[in-house]
Amino acid sequence: MNAAHPFDAAVALQAGADGAFTGRTSPAYANFIGPYGGITAAQCMNAVLQHPERLGDPVAFTVNFAAAVADGDFVLRPRAARTNRSTQHWVVEMLQGGEVVATATALTAVRRPTWGGHEMPMPEALPPAGVPRVTRRGVAWLERYEMRFLLGMIPRDWDGDGTPESLSRLWVRDDPPRPLDFASLAALCDVFFPRIWLRRARQTPLGTVSMTVYFHATAAELAAAGTGHLLAQARGQGFGSGYFDHAGQLWSESGDLLATTHQVMYYKE
Amino acid sequence: MNAAHPFDAAVALQAGADGAFTGRTSPAYANFIGPYGGITAAQCMNAVLQHPERLGDPVAFTVNFAAAVADGDFVLRPRAARTNRSTQHWVVEMLQGGEVVATATALTAVRRPTWGGHEMPMPEALPPAGVPRVTRRGVAWLERYEMRFLLGMIPRDWDGDGTPESLSRLWVRDDPPRPLDFASLAALCDVFFPRIWLRRARQTPLGTVSMTVYFHATAAELAAAGTGHLLAQARGQGFGSGYFDHAGQLWSESGDLLATTHQVMYYKE
Repeated sequence: MNAAHPFDAAVALQAGADGAFTGRTSPAYANFIGPYGGITAAQCMNAVLQHPERLGDPVAFTVNFAAAVADGDFVLRPRAARTNRSTQHWVVEMLQGGEVVATATALTAVRRPTWGGHEMPMPEALPPAGVPRVTRRGVAWLERYEMRFLLGMIPRDWDGDGTPESLSRLWVRDDPPRPLDFASLAALCDVFFPRIWLRRARQTPLGTVSMTVYFHATAAELAAAGTGHLLAQARGQGFGSGYFDHAGQLWSESGDLLATTHQVMYYKE
Repeated sequence: MNAAHPFDAAVALQAGADGAFTGRTSPAYANFIGPYGGITAAQCMNAVLQHPERLGDPVAFTVNFAAAVADGDFVLRPRAARTNRSTQHWVVEMLQGGEVVATATALTAVRRPTWGGHEMPMPEALPPAGVPRVTRRGVAWLERYEMRFLLGMIPRDWDGDGTPESLSRLWVRDDPPRPLDFASLAALCDVFFPRIWLRRARQTPLGTVSMTVYFHATAAELAAAGTGHLLAQARGQGFGSGYFDHAGQLWSESGDLLATTHQVMYYKE
């Protein structure tokens, strides 16, 4: 924990007497309206990670964005719905003014060595140093990530002339660099620009409504990833009747699959 | 609702005075031990679908299998954590003997016509009638599905000689055929044999711990799919330290993307 890093400040929670935590949105991770969804996800994840009864490390995590999060204070209520010998199932609610703004579920588990062999290899990619860094900015949370696009950067011109495929691939890490952990990896799973922007080259109003992360990295593998870049990719699947989804993967710079992620976004037209 | 169909009998719930529902596991969907996970998922989904306050149709659904479901009665507690103008966020718990055996979250929404264009086209496939039906059986729930494999059937011999890729592709529908609905589609999202069986050709103990479904089909598109076959495919992503995941898609016989799905399974060695 590095108190000076904006991520640590943003996910910091204070434990209350009733098992709840309180926190506060961070201007450093502000989006166009309200906070970056990835930081809301990381705050929900952190309520589980900081819980004194937590067993093991995160394996699966789903966060549902139920309402716009307002700038200011929030309450997180994590609850262990079921604790087994080596696994634990969590239900989390984030509240503002007594109203639910996000729900989440998480599975934590004591992971043990087994046979393994990832089937989704890291795509060939130029090393990060050889890929130009995105400098087009203007939104706070984008300043918190160093992004170097290999494929599928957002359109230069919002001229309605999109692409038939929405695959994006980028090197990404916290800015300033910060050793990777489960909370920051959850946040990184939401860095992908909305796939529909690539498909349509048009800025329709939209927002993520649900995101799932499967953690393939153990704590030791996260430590090995350190402050290196992650190769992150995402591709849209279904788009219609106001909702679309994407599937994504994130690898360490050395090629370890760290997480797979999926999300569904609402869009207006 | 066709009272004679085993699926309808299996997902039937009785509303209680306290907002909870009661149901009972169905021998027709029994797995090796306890019920088929897909039917547990469908029961959780149905608790939302049958709730008198439900708004709209399912868009996103995550179910977490927290403990083995015992044969017998269960209680389902669906709760609308947040209701907006056109969306609603649900938290569901399934209990047996007062203990949580599954948790779920669901987003339901009133879907409206928008621009659309699925990016994940249905793979080329021989029509169902030209693909042999699987006859190898012995487990009740397998009898509830007509399966015709195009690719990635489970190994004939458990000789430890697996395949480097775990892509499976099959035509599948309820047996006897039944008009598709949200609950049966949720159940169908769990028909995939464990990907690790293909990779290892070895029956390690395992079980699904979390599954997410994104519904791309509207109610009208489900009605159009009717009793036809679905083309379903799934492919493993990460395998290690006791857990692996897969990503899957299901299309109607006419090529509409109906749902995308992901799950993570525990495995023992």
